[in-house]
Amino acid sequence: ASTLALGEKHQDQDDEMAESGGSSGGAAAGGGGGNDNNKEIMSYWGVEPAKITREDGSEWRWNCFRPWETYKADVSIDLDKHHVPTTFLDKMAYWTVKALRFPTDVFFQRRYGCRAMMLETVAAVPGMVGGMLLHCKSLRRFEHSGGWIKALLEEAENERMHLMTFMEVSQPRWYERALVFTVQGVFFNAYFLTYLISPKMAHRVVGYLEEEAIHSYTEFLKELDKGNIENVPAPAIAIDYWRLPPNSTLRDVVVVVRADEAHHRDVNHFASDIHYQGRELNEAPAPIGYH
Amino acid sequence: ASTLALGEKHQDQDDEMAESGGSSGGAAAGGGGGNDNNKEIMSYWGVEPAKITREDGSEWRWNCFRPWETYKADVSIDLDKHHVPTTFLDKMAYWTVKALRFPTDVFFQRRYGCRAMMLETVAAVPGMVGGMLLHCKSLRRFEHSGGWIKALLEEAENERMHLMTFMEVSQPRWYERALVFTVQGVFFNAYFLTYLISPKMAHRVVGYLEEEAIHSYTEFLKELDKGNIENVPAPAIAIDYWRLPPNSTLRDVVVVVRADEAHHRDVNHFASDIHYQGRELNEAPAPIGYH
Ligand SMILES: [Fe+2]
Ligand SMILES: [Fe+2]
Ligand SMILES: [Fe+2]
Ligand SMILES: [Fe+2]
Repeated sequence: ASTLALGEKHQDQDDEMAESGGSSGGAAAGGGGGNDNNKEIMSYWGVEPAKITREDGSEWRWNCFRPWETYKADVSIDLDKHHVPTTFLDKMAYWTVKALRFPTDVFFQRRYGCRAMMLETVAAVPGMVGGMLLHCKSLRRFEHSGGWIKALLEEAENERMHLMTFMEVSQPRWYERALVFTVQGVFFNAYFLTYLISPKMAHRVVGYLEEEAIHSYTEFLKELDKGNIENVPAPAIAIDYWRLPPNSTLRDVVVVVRADEAHHRDVNHFASDIHYQGRELNEAPAPIGYH
Repeated sequence: ASTLALGEKHQDQDDEMAESGGSSGGAAAGGGGGNDNNKEIMSYWGVEPAKITREDGSEWRWNCFRPWETYKADVSIDLDKHHVPTTFLDKMAYWTVKALRFPTDVFFQRRYGCRAMMLETVAAVPGMVGGMLLHCKSLRRFEHSGGWIKALLEEAENERMHLMTFMEVSQPRWYERALVFTVQGVFFNAYFLTYLISPKMAHRVVGYLEEEAIHSYTEFLKELDKGNIENVPAPAIAIDYWRLPPNSTLRDVVVVVRADEAHHRDVNHFASDIHYQGRELNEAPAPIGYH
């Protein structure tokens, strides 16, 4: 609710914009110091970004997330819960994940920082795919979602924040970027198809992936405690996102990230269980804000 | 942060669940009265939905949206703003939308309630597609989103709430359901491809679609005022979502929905303008919570 009424002015700017549009891709690209220009675009449609402040009154410095999305992670969550696979589908999900683990272990060895960064680019896919498919289904069937669209999109958002955090600690090299590009293409489509065919299976796979993620982050913590990985100060983005004390370290970040993964594990096994009982997700209220 | 520690109990339930899973799709399906069973699933993974109350202390009755997503629409927004198409791309976007309008007018005639319901199933697609593609791009490139993922997903969410509202006023018939199914399949893919090739074009198209939506809702209001469409009481879901007074009517709902469309128009033309200036969306902070 922050519109500027520019009335008669906007028509002229219209033409100006359209013209400058013709030569797009030019000098203005690449950003940096383009603040005047930014202002111009903004006032044009009256879309003014709200001034956001922290609790202490200082300016909020992130655009990719806002103060009301931050939280204190519930680190008391049981990290050892495991869904014992008994049905054929569960076993298939379980062994798929175990099979994926093997090449990953070989590739990364003990480089847990790099591993975390790379795997989070993949971890953020299932929530988005599931949320999108449920959204389309809700529209097509004229049905309420029970909050599951939001819950899955929140998971995707949360995983993306894990990535934004680990990016600060470990920089991807060019061949890693190329790898992520390929893996995302394959994984997105594979997960999309799996979700279309069997959401029960898809959520179970994610449940097991999260169990493995918890394990990897526990190993990460062990390496940090042994001193094999330097316990650097926590990135600023992590301190703001998880409301950590200002002197937090990488270790504290890994602990809250691991707690997040345990929550994702619960949500996804739960979603799979709902399908196992022959129900649709929207018959059970979704766990929104379950951190 | 609402976990139940069930400790030793959960392993047994594990096996029980897996077994009952084998016979899924059976008697439990279809819901209704399945509350005991619901409880069982929930306590299993410790995922307990939070008890949510309104400001007056009464229980919150919606799962598909929560109190903190409700808002008062800014109805003071300029409804007549129009982006004059001058470049070739803009003209293409403009005439695509105009061409789509013609068969729609013929199909619906003056049935504005039905029209609104049907078109909202399509309107909720672009935000989701754009949000998903930006999410994947953010992951692939190890880049912040500038809040645009959230802004576009919020738009999709908002459009879905429009649909949930009009569903209460107008029930889809079987052939309308079939039509939505087909149109969604075509439109989703068309928009997906357009966004991949030219987000500049994609956002411009949505900007023009929203301009048409404003026009249609204005016609809807005229028919309501003439008495050709009965001004029924506003659906409960609309009263809660837009925080309308309890005695609101369909007319009040159409007014706030129209204001929403005007906001989407601004956001999408703005996004297209950013691309026209040769920039990426994440270089300008996204308008989050712009209602
Ligand atoms: Fe993660
Ligand atoms: Fe996760
Ligand atoms: Fe709408
Ligand atoms: Fe809209």
